[in-house]
Amino acid sequence: MSAELISDILHLTPGWAAQAEAAGLEKDDTTMILGEASRLAEEVLAPLAGRADEEGCTVENGRVRTPQGYREALAKLGADGWLAADLPEDFGGQGLPTAVHVAASLAFEGAAMPFMMIGGSTRAGAHCLIAAAPELAATWAPKLASGEWTATICISEPDAGSDVGRIRTRATDLGDGQWSITGPKCWISFGDHDMAARIGHLCLARTGTPEEGTRGLSLFLVPDVKDDGSRNAIRVERIEEKLGLHGSPTCVLSFEGAEGQMVGEPGRGLVTLFRMIELMRLQTGCQGAGVALRAAALARHYAGERLQGGKPSEPPVPILSHPDVRRQLLDMQSNAALLAALVAEAAVTTDAARAGDAEAEMRSAFLLPLAKNFGGEIAFEVASGAVQVLGGAGYTREWPAERYLRDARIITIYEGTTGMQGQDFLMRRLLKDEGRSLDAFTRAARAELTASPHEAEAARAAAMLDRFIALADRLMSSGASTKVLLGQADGYLRAGWTAVSALMAVRLAGLGEEGRAWARYRLHFSEAEMTRAEASCSLPPELLDSVV
Amino acid sequence: MSAELISDILHLTPGWAAQAEAAGLEKDDTTMILGEASRLAEEVLAPLAGRADEEGCTVENGRVRTPQGYREALAKLGADGWLAADLPEDFGGQGLPTAVHVAASLAFEGAAMPFMMIGGSTRAGAHCLIAAAPELAATWAPKLASGEWTATICISEPDAGSDVGRIRTRATDLGDGQWSITGPKCWISFGDHDMAARIGHLCLARTGTPEEGTRGLSLFLVPDVKDDGSRNAIRVERIEEKLGLHGSPTCVLSFEGAEGQMVGEPGRGLVTLFRMIELMRLQTGCQGAGVALRAAALARHYAGERLQGGKPSEPPVPILSHPDVRRQLLDMQSNAALLAALVAEAAVTTDAARAGDAEAEMRSAFLLPLAKNFGGEIAFEVASGAVQVLGGAGYTREWPAERYLRDARIITIYEGTTGMQGQDFLMRRLLKDEGRSLDAFTRAARAELTASPHEAEAARAAAMLDRFIALADRLMSSGASTKVLLGQADGYLRAGWTAVSALMAVRLAGLGEEGRAWARYRLHFSEAEMTRAEASCSLPPELLDSVV
Repeated sequence: MSAELISDILHLTPGWAAQAEAAGLEKDDTTMILGEASRLAEEVLAPLAGRADEEGCTVENGRVRTPQGYREALAKLGADGWLAADLPEDFGGQGLPTAVHVAASLAFEGAAMPFMMIGGSTRAGAHCLIAAAPELAATWAPKLASGEWTATICISEPDAGSDVGRIRTRATDLGDGQWSITGPKCWISFGDHDMAARIGHLCLARTGTPEEGTRGLSLFLVPDVKDDGSRNAIRVERIEEKLGLHGSPTCVLSFEGAEGQMVGEPGRGLVTLFRMIELMRLQTGCQGAGVALRAAALARHYAGERLQGGKPSEPPVPILSHPDVRRQLLDMQSNAALLAALVAEAAVTTDAARAGDAEAEMRSAFLLPLAKNFGGEIAFEVASGAVQVLGGAGYTREWPAERYLRDARIITIYEGTTGMQGQDFLMRRLLKDEGRSLDAFTRAARAELTASPHEAEAARAAAMLDRFIALADRLMSSGASTKVLLGQADGYLRAGWTAVSALMAVRLAGLGEEGRAWARYRLHFSEAEMTRAEASCSLPPELLDSVV
Repeated sequence: MSAELISDILHLTPGWAAQAEAAGLEKDDTTMILGEASRLAEEVLAPLAGRADEEGCTVENGRVRTPQGYREALAKLGADGWLAADLPEDFGGQGLPTAVHVAASLAFEGAAMPFMMIGGSTRAGAHCLIAAAPELAATWAPKLASGEWTATICISEPDAGSDVGRIRTRATDLGDGQWSITGPKCWISFGDHDMAARIGHLCLARTGTPEEGTRGLSLFLVPDVKDDGSRNAIRVERIEEKLGLHGSPTCVLSFEGAEGQMVGEPGRGLVTLFRMIELMRLQTGCQGAGVALRAAALARHYAGERLQGGKPSEPPVPILSHPDVRRQLLDMQSNAALLAALVAEAAVTTDAARAGDAEAEMRSAFLLPLAKNFGGEIAFEVASGAVQVLGGAGYTREWPAERYLRDARIITIYEGTTGMQGQDFLMRRLLKDEGRSLDAFTRAARAELTASPHEAEAARAAAMLDRFIALADRLMSSGASTKVLLGQADGYLRAGWTAVSALMAVRLAGLGEEGRAWARYRLHFSEAEMTRAEASCSLPPELLDSVV
């Protein structure tokens, strides 16, 4: 998808106009920025990704070796300001709106999602330090923004994945602001590498008792190289052999009395880290949208070139001319565009929330689990669709469709599985918050639909919104047990997606004839999707008891 | 899933009782046979599959080298009678019903789908020769049944995949019943290997003019080793690097004046080969059911072992106790069981059709595209579900979930893509045949539903059947152009699946409490699925024109 189209989508996003004006960005500026991002993605990242997938990462003498060209690509991204475009200029960034960063990252993630994992944690780490530890950020953030140093997020342990409250890695106070960290951490993307001079691990560790659960956790910045230049006590145990994401080393690390400094307040580690987690969830949405856009474009390209079928008496025709292939492409293109619209909105609301807009903060909390999860599901679906359009060729490694499929499969697992997103969306965002984030979303959605010139489409989307709200009301007032509700969380998440995707579809209708077709196509299936989601929320609970 | 359960499913299949009686099989006999198959699958095939996936196949000195243990496993399967249990005893088989072969193969396919590719084409090749060339079969079939020799199916060429009418490989009459075959063939599974003494290629080649399309094609048996023991002129160009199925070499072959004999009549090659194609489509259904059953079992096993979550003050609990995990398992288990029921029925009707039952022949033609396609789709979905339940672990190569996912992805591509199945299902089975196969299916389905003691479930399934028939009637009488209809074929295929899977769900309700829960779960979503499929059939045709 062209930079122009992404720019158009961004300009249709409510709230963007004000942010663009505040940043002094005309529409042409944004389009130009996105055009540059797209060029860098094609010239530097895309050629890297295929090679990196084949070469993979290895552990040599206890250190991770990354694929050829990685070091140079990171330096290039840093030097050109892409790693942290939305960091304040004081901290080495360009002070651009998050939405510009996100829109640019669609091209980067599509071209080389595994490589971009390092950009994601590095940028999010910089934001986290700026918010919670300005004195550390003064040194670290500019280095992270330039890619001279990088950052990781260290949460999971072998016995504590989704269940953060059971983290056992210990932090002991050494005095003078130094702490000693000991314990195992796993699933650490770019937990070690050879691309930069220093790696800062943002690491959750226990300062309190096990009984305190998450409230006994504090956050630490633990560098792999200490200030005096000596190596810190962090060992690379191994890297995982995975289905995909071969261009991103997934490390098991052992902290063995490693020295670090506390970030934020004691016992507030998870809360402090949440800013980083939020940005990384937003990134997973970008990954999904980026991969979906690229996979859809690949399928469209192939369909225009591959000759097969048509009248036997005439030369074979491009498979693009077969109605069923067109149907598949329409499905993929509209889904990918819809994700782009959603992550654009998530980015705009993230910035607005940071600027103190309480409504935007609630909308952001509402949208993020959806962008995270359905970015992942749809990217996988579109990549699989690309494999299908390419047929036998798509199943081979001659074409990147199968790589997109393998890479995309991780998105609904890391940074909180689908199950965790559903639980968060229902139990926290709806029930615990008493529907406030849903209300905020609803207010904005209704305003947008009422103002939309695409009346037929807006009416369909409004009907979906009504059904979703009715479902939410029913769940809130059902008095059902937690167990029963947890069995319905996935259905509720999907109902939310149907409502939100219907709204995004209406927005896409503003993109001219093609966008109008995307909107009509997606809304054509909204009712059936909502019916499916509602059914999931009315599944007789005793059926789940029957699993043996 | 246990041999008992598969045996129970088979015994619930209409038409099986008569076939079992004719074959002198008591229920205990079937269960025992399936128990033996299951044991062989666990002891011989499952350990082979993981290693084979890692080791892969290679080309050395122009010949394909297969993974360690393959030769022995093939010999074992042949010696124990599993390769062609349903071949007549005169031809080296055991004369067992196809349904027994199919039920046994669920365990084999689940354990080692890539390896079993050689069994599939070898068995189907033997059946094809017996039907069309008894004199060749007298020599070949017993050797194929024992695994001393193997067979392939050679249809596709670089410019003729789904479009068989454009096949350009030429056959020239050498006299004395010998022909010379020249041309490229691709996507040939086990087109070369080191596991058996001889490979017979069942190869479509042109004896007529290009203008004759498929009517200019004849079928040939082209051995890699000639009767005099010298090698035939067939060259292995390369094997494909693929997403999965690493344990099955996918060959590009070049026939360079290779000598072969005609099978069946000139110009009737595709018709003659159809028996083989049908059996291989049935096998793809078995692959799907087998992989789905195994992936569901893996997820269930892991969920019972993996401890995570639960009350913070207590030890972590197996993730099986989380309602959302149970929901995922219920979805996977019920889908896998449903596929098993469908391939059992497809097998029973295949045998009945061969025995001259015209109704069964029509039902078989109706069911086969569905078993083929949804076997593939659901296997992929269940494998992906297993990856999800295993979480991060599922994304690693430590567990076979990701291998199941990679392997299963091919099923909706080869032996006719989803698009081709949809086209066949709508344009041939419904429109060209004027709904006769649908009528045959409907008659049997109504009889079964009327007789079912599970009235609530049967009523739901009957409603789905009614809606499907109404849709079929609408499409038959719509007068829409071929182009419009082709754009709706996928929706029609899915509507057919919803009706058939609802019927299978009612059948599963006969399996005691667990089966009843599966039935209720699946039928709970039937309406939404049918609504989705109907919507696909009412998509405004002009939307497809909008794809640019």
